[in-house]
Amino acid sequence: MELAQELLEIITDPSRISTNLTIREQHGQDVSYHLPKLPDVVVYPQDKQEVSKILQFANERAIPVIPFGVGSSLEGHIIPAQGGITIDMTLMNQIIEIRPEDFLVKAQPGVTRNQLNKALQAYGLFFPVDPGADATIGGMAATNASGTNAVRYGVMRDQVKGLEVVLADGTVIHTGGMSMKSSAGYNLTGLFVGSEGTLGVFTEITLKVYGIPETTIAARAVFPDIGTATQAATAIISSGVAIGKVELVDDFTIDAVNQYKGTAYEPLPTLFLEFSGHKASVDEESSLVKEILQSEGCVNIQFEKDSKARAQLWEARHQVAMAILAKAPGKRLMSTDVCVPLSQLPGALVQARQILSSYQLVAGLLGHVGDGNYHASILIDPNDMHEVENAEIAHEEIVRYALGCGGTCTGEHGVGMGKKQYLSEEHGAEAVAVMKLIKGSLDPKRILNPGKILS
Amino acid sequence: MELAQELLEIITDPSRISTNLTIREQHGQDVSYHLPKLPDVVVYPQDKQEVSKILQFANERAIPVIPFGVGSSLEGHIIPAQGGITIDMTLMNQIIEIRPEDFLVKAQPGVTRNQLNKALQAYGLFFPVDPGADATIGGMAATNASGTNAVRYGVMRDQVKGLEVVLADGTVIHTGGMSMKSSAGYNLTGLFVGSEGTLGVFTEITLKVYGIPETTIAARAVFPDIGTATQAATAIISSGVAIGKVELVDDFTIDAVNQYKGTAYEPLPTLFLEFSGHKASVDEESSLVKEILQSEGCVNIQFEKDSKARAQLWEARHQVAMAILAKAPGKRLMSTDVCVPLSQLPGALVQARQILSSYQLVAGLLGHVGDGNYHASILIDPNDMHEVENAEIAHEEIVRYALGCGGTCTGEHGVGMGKKQYLSEEHGAEAVAVMKLIKGSLDPKRILNPGKILS
Repeated sequence: MELAQELLEIITDPSRISTNLTIREQHGQDVSYHLPKLPDVVVYPQDKQEVSKILQFANERAIPVIPFGVGSSLEGHIIPAQGGITIDMTLMNQIIEIRPEDFLVKAQPGVTRNQLNKALQAYGLFFPVDPGADATIGGMAATNASGTNAVRYGVMRDQVKGLEVVLADGTVIHTGGMSMKSSAGYNLTGLFVGSEGTLGVFTEITLKVYGIPETTIAARAVFPDIGTATQAATAIISSGVAIGKVELVDDFTIDAVNQYKGTAYEPLPTLFLEFSGHKASVDEESSLVKEILQSEGCVNIQFEKDSKARAQLWEARHQVAMAILAKAPGKRLMSTDVCVPLSQLPGALVQARQILSSYQLVAGLLGHVGDGNYHASILIDPNDMHEVENAEIAHEEIVRYALGCGGTCTGEHGVGMGKKQYLSEEHGAEAVAVMKLIKGSLDPKRILNPGKILS
Repeated sequence: MELAQELLEIITDPSRISTNLTIREQHGQDVSYHLPKLPDVVVYPQDKQEVSKILQFANERAIPVIPFGVGSSLEGHIIPAQGGITIDMTLMNQIIEIRPEDFLVKAQPGVTRNQLNKALQAYGLFFPVDPGADATIGGMAATNASGTNAVRYGVMRDQVKGLEVVLADGTVIHTGGMSMKSSAGYNLTGLFVGSEGTLGVFTEITLKVYGIPETTIAARAVFPDIGTATQAATAIISSGVAIGKVELVDDFTIDAVNQYKGTAYEPLPTLFLEFSGHKASVDEESSLVKEILQSEGCVNIQFEKDSKARAQLWEARHQVAMAILAKAPGKRLMSTDVCVPLSQLPGALVQARQILSSYQLVAGLLGHVGDGNYHASILIDPNDMHEVENAEIAHEEIVRYALGCGGTCTGEHGVGMGKKQYLSEEHGAEAVAVMKLIKGSLDPKRILNPGKILS
């Protein structure tokens, strides 16, 4: 209460400071299995000056600060591990400038991706990164999110051209700019993207946007088993076709989606695909892909040219996490997020299913197979220690397999609280020591989202 | 001599340590106008252990260390501003592993891009970054180089998936990996790329490579003036066509190329273009582009489908720097390298020509107009103080114009010695202070390529 009182000196409007239990609970948990922890206070700044003052205040007193978007993170990123001040960025949700001729947009971090796309549509533009949830662009930049479009358009770090960042001591800096490329000094933009709120708080983001393609075709290709499906996806990527999306959904998950969305997809491992571009290219590429799929053992292919049918198909894909959760009310999700070199993906997926079975875990397998990234979405009861332990062991085995073939423990979710233990194994203790040097030099009092990424 | 003697303890082979004046002169100057300075000694390590020992040795004694590839940098990057040890990476030129199914190659930093492409060809693969010179991949990674293919494939930072880096104190670290994407901790790979040898020395580089496109068509489009040509390039990019290259060469430079290469191109501002991909797409896109060019005032278009004619055309483009230099034997090049938001490019180019004329400078204008990056290649006599001063003022005005419209002082050459004075103006003193914190935490004795990027 005293803290809230003191913050009132900065945020002079009491309705934007809260110690209400429900509000704190909403800011104490993300959509993962990680156990909640409450912030002492939640503040809703309206501009960078307020963010700067809050950080200066917190830094002087060594109080933890946690930036918060919509709370859709998957590794406990926004859980106040040591209490402190949660900065909810929801009110900083203005799209500052759309520059259609430069394919750029400047926005505040609280803008969500659906809000952004709605605004861009009038200009024939769109923003491609789609992590499933209607996350904020601030949160997406913080975790270097990606999703189904990454194989074609790249990940969040590829889109962020510039940032306004408030550092731990309240200093406001600008990184990057509005040009498509630059070699002007250290790449601070790329360092802050993916730093999960541990190096600074974003207050403005400049993003690259894209023209909406002239033609888009979606397809659903059904396979007898997961190995064949993955092999087919790899064959498509290797053919050099400029595919837009290649998503794998396993039989368990297809079944969950059918129950949750009322669809009637064949309950077999399925690739969801999309091609887009000018008409002649799309036609040529979709017929090439059809040939590849058939020669790789696909048992059924459905093309969807109609935009409504296409939207329905991707809606189904985007809601798989919810569909899996609906299978077992009360349970929560532990999601693995490894990414392996393309050639290793078929083996990795087969291995993952074996690991999950050996620990009697109920889990869906789904993946952005175009870039070697896949998730085992494991249903667990966070209070069932035995189940949690089994899931953790399975998680560890899946990660070890990925690291063993040159992959990463997290392709797009980020480290948060749940993957810290793999960081040294992936990068080596010496590289993690460099990360710690950088953290120490930018946030000497370690107030910024403590307990995340680094131990 | 004493230093060389001491280094003999590390590099036990005396033929790989040199204090010979000619050798030191070769390592004292790049291809820019910056005045040479000699290293005290040049060493040629054969492996990372030797690099590590050299750095440990130098760090203990606070001796400057300068990594050297082929010396094709354009801002004095490899000039030993404070003397010291130049580490020539030429002997570390092994391609370690080509993984065609993963679209990855691991190589030592002394591999040149032509060497790499020759090795990749057998697999139907290629590496797209082409800065013109046959630079080493180590040097290209150090400056975040790009070139004509950047509009389609991205810059060096987009291709480097992992690094082995020797830090100032000799510690060897590994960053990144072999997966297409990762959110596992701070993006050290992207930080080291573009750090110009000031944060560490690369000893191994993992690069993304690409399938050689099925079909490629090149075109040459001639315009009455530079404004119209740039406007046409911008219109092509805005149309969403997946163009491969769009290069602008002004009338002065076309004339220089004709003299140097014996070509007979019309001496007018010219766009050199390339489209590649599957046949139907290329045909569709090239006819779309033809329509756009004509409606934008193009006076002549020549398409080149034949691979020999195409090679000749790009050869001409790649040798413009040499062609300009040949115009005035004994002179050297000062190259501006600004990059502006796409919509600002036509105005920026017209303005640049006016600035150059107002200072009576002889210069070619050429640009990677697809990403808003262009160069004024100014001929100067480094000993003619008046000419150097005029060129520096013109350079400054061109940079100011670019920064004024949200651009960068360097799109692809890097900061080196020549653009340090613009760094604070571009990023703000607070952001430069963050760069200095990072430099200070990784290289506290400031032995790594001192005098570059940061003052």
